[in-house]
Amino acid sequence: MNYEAFFEQAVSALKSENRYRVFADLERVAGEFPRAIHHTPEGPRFIVVWCSNDYLGMGQHPAVVGAMTETAQRMGAGAGGTRNISGNHHPVVQLEAELADLHGKEAALVFTSGYVSNLTGIATIAKLIPNCLILSDALNHNSMIEGVRNAGCEKVIFRHNDMAHLEELLQAAGPERPKLIVFESVYSMDGDIAPISAICDLAERYGAMTYIDEVHAVGLYGPRGAGVAERDGQMARIDVIEGTLAKAYGCLGGYIAGKASVIDAVRSHAPGFIFTTTLPPAVAAAACASVRHLKASSAERATHQQQAARTKAALLAAGLPVMDTPTHIVPLMVRDAELCKAASDRLLDKHGIYIQPINYPTVPRGAERLRITPTPVHDDALIAALTAALVEVWDHFGLPRAGAEPLAVAAE
Amino acid sequence: MNYEAFFEQAVSALKSENRYRVFADLERVAGEFPRAIHHTPEGPRFIVVWCSNDYLGMGQHPAVVGAMTETAQRMGAGAGGTRNISGNHHPVVQLEAELADLHGKEAALVFTSGYVSNLTGIATIAKLIPNCLILSDALNHNSMIEGVRNAGCEKVIFRHNDMAHLEELLQAAGPERPKLIVFESVYSMDGDIAPISAICDLAERYGAMTYIDEVHAVGLYGPRGAGVAERDGQMARIDVIEGTLAKAYGCLGGYIAGKASVIDAVRSHAPGFIFTTTLPPAVAAAACASVRHLKASSAERATHQQQAARTKAALLAAGLPVMDTPTHIVPLMVRDAELCKAASDRLLDKHGIYIQPINYPTVPRGAERLRITPTPVHDDALIAALTAALVEVWDHFGLPRAGAEPLAVAAE
Ligand SMILES: Cc1ncc(COP(=O)(O)O)c(C=O)c1O
Ligand SMILES: Cc1ncc(COP(=O)(O)O)c(C=O)c1O
Repeated sequence: MNYEAFFEQAVSALKSENRYRVFADLERVAGEFPRAIHHTPEGPRFIVVWCSNDYLGMGQHPAVVGAMTETAQRMGAGAGGTRNISGNHHPVVQLEAELADLHGKEAALVFTSGYVSNLTGIATIAKLIPNCLILSDALNHNSMIEGVRNAGCEKVIFRHNDMAHLEELLQAAGPERPKLIVFESVYSMDGDIAPISAICDLAERYGAMTYIDEVHAVGLYGPRGAGVAERDGQMARIDVIEGTLAKAYGCLGGYIAGKASVIDAVRSHAPGFIFTTTLPPAVAAAACASVRHLKASSAERATHQQQAARTKAALLAAGLPVMDTPTHIVPLMVRDAELCKAASDRLLDKHGIYIQPINYPTVPRGAERLRITPTPVHDDALIAALTAALVEVWDHFGLPRAGAEPLAVAAE
Repeated sequence: MNYEAFFEQAVSALKSENRYRVFADLERVAGEFPRAIHHTPEGPRFIVVWCSNDYLGMGQHPAVVGAMTETAQRMGAGAGGTRNISGNHHPVVQLEAELADLHGKEAALVFTSGYVSNLTGIATIAKLIPNCLILSDALNHNSMIEGVRNAGCEKVIFRHNDMAHLEELLQAAGPERPKLIVFESVYSMDGDIAPISAICDLAERYGAMTYIDEVHAVGLYGPRGAGVAERDGQMARIDVIEGTLAKAYGCLGGYIAGKASVIDAVRSHAPGFIFTTTLPPAVAAAACASVRHLKASSAERATHQQQAARTKAALLAAGLPVMDTPTHIVPLMVRDAELCKAASDRLLDKHGIYIQPINYPTVPRGAERLRITPTPVHDDALIAALTAALVEVWDHFGLPRAGAEPLAVAAE
């Protein structure tokens, strides 16, 4: 049997659709972000990254890097085991306390990634609720979709942020049926926000449990950086809050926070938590330092919003097709996979600006885009350089100038 | 609806079965391993860890810790994105080249954990093979079971290491059916080893693809530490080799290695790879240093086997029920969940020795045990102290002295 042919065929199909991904070989430089070294066949060179999810540049914050190196020196590299078998270390215990406090919940549980926290968190919660019906937003992230699928229970999809549709489905399920509503706060590709308070109203009215993914919001919104639910005064109404330590917090890992009973049950039953090595002590300590810093300091959040707004304004003023978003995410529409890739390549080659093209399946076909993520360290000069480079690229390829509001199907 | 009751009930069921897990709050101390600080309500104290999967103590190796701290200082804490969107960094690219070389394969792909590499690796490979039939060893790890389940294709389970049964199933599937055999090299709870060469013979005879989990063997077996398949001269015959960077290599992360076409197809299609933040540069660099070191140095492997053999011999000489294993894993049978927990508690409280009890579902009911993992840094004095402590505990509880060979159902 020629097995290789199956794999070759799978890859060539992607290539023929212009969906084959080539990863840029980057070398981050602490203290220089958003500049990074790009390793190319012609040798290394400095470029400016405009598509990082290290939204606040916390990955290079001295308190975070310091916690990481100090802890590695003191405790070594890895955890050496699963949480249960010798891998439960002090920094991860402290991190969980910090996260529970951040969200005003009784307890929190840390996973190796936000991906795994959704995958095994949603599945385990739903499995522990007899006859659970999951109501899932149509644009939920792949990790949530996999979690819902792994739950193995009945699920219904409500149209993205459509409260009338959600209510219809809740009503149809009946008051006796246990129900779990699963949604995000900030949707990362379109940069829009869920109507959290309306969802909580419906959950209370129809007796549903709520699970929110704040992966693109923790560290970034709310007085202590606990997310959009904190900002909107809805945090206490949500049963389970899920977040990542790998984006605004600049490290690695994911978590859920909620009532002690829920967290303890997930801790005790979730295979993706039980059967895997714990995050390294140094990573947990770095994440903890980052969470702590952003709890106390709002300066990064304020500058972040300011530079995101300035980026949008500059691009709009230049006539570029920016999607208007209520968040820090700045999608620039191209609407064609090949052109999107070509624009990204030219930005990098000619202008030293790195913005990865976002194509299907991360967004729907016809909604291809450059997803720009300004940070507090993208200063006004960088914004001006970005704008000029984009105008050159747009002119070069004759790309569309008008904006629009397409829907994303899956976010990376 | 009282959702909390569901979760409380799930936890109290565990408690009533003596299966509720309490994690020891440990603080690793680089340079002191296997000693660690145990945080208790009465304050911190030093204990000796005898159940770590940091099998060679590489988590505290200066080259590994040095690579971690140096890289964190130079590149910062996190990767800042998924592999495709700004998170592809130089150390992970180098690590993949190192791992491909380790296993003599064309390419390798790194995941955030061994758990995720099995989960999304097996599922993606099987999905890319039309009408694939998975043949899975009965004692495969939970991460492999979840990978097989996620593949969504037909599967059959062969009795653990039973070649006659595997052949029967291969034959029944017929020569035209694409087949994937999924198994481990070292089974971590019983410490036994798969007949790799016989499995490869069958795979060739019946035209099956092979996927091996060498999580408890990489770093530990073979002239360059590539695992049991390397030691047995079978590495080139296996299609996909999966391993972890979190056990013998002392860090975090998992990987698969194989033909370039297979790896590229998984890279391009695996959701658990695509939709998650990359391992931090510092973790990848530390893992790379560890792999490199153990490629060149066999001293750790030799001392490891020697101290494991000495531990087994000492315990056997003291009349303790050691399961005879051909590996570094030393299971000590208790065969009762409550006594197993009590023995572990007494070892810790009275003797300052930490060995986590292994109960159902990690092993079958009636096969409860203390799983002892000697390392090169467990010297003869520590072995003598362990033996004396175990004898005291065994006498105290009147635990069984005779050995036996039970089967594990799931390994953690
Ligand atoms: C909405 C959402 N949830 C979860 C994740 C996964 O988080 P992590 O990168 O920590 O695995 C992502 C992206 O990576 C995401 O966009
Ligand atoms: C056989 C086996 N495979 C995979 C894993 C998962 O590896 P990791 O800890 O890197 O997630 C484990 C244990 O953790 C294991 O025992």
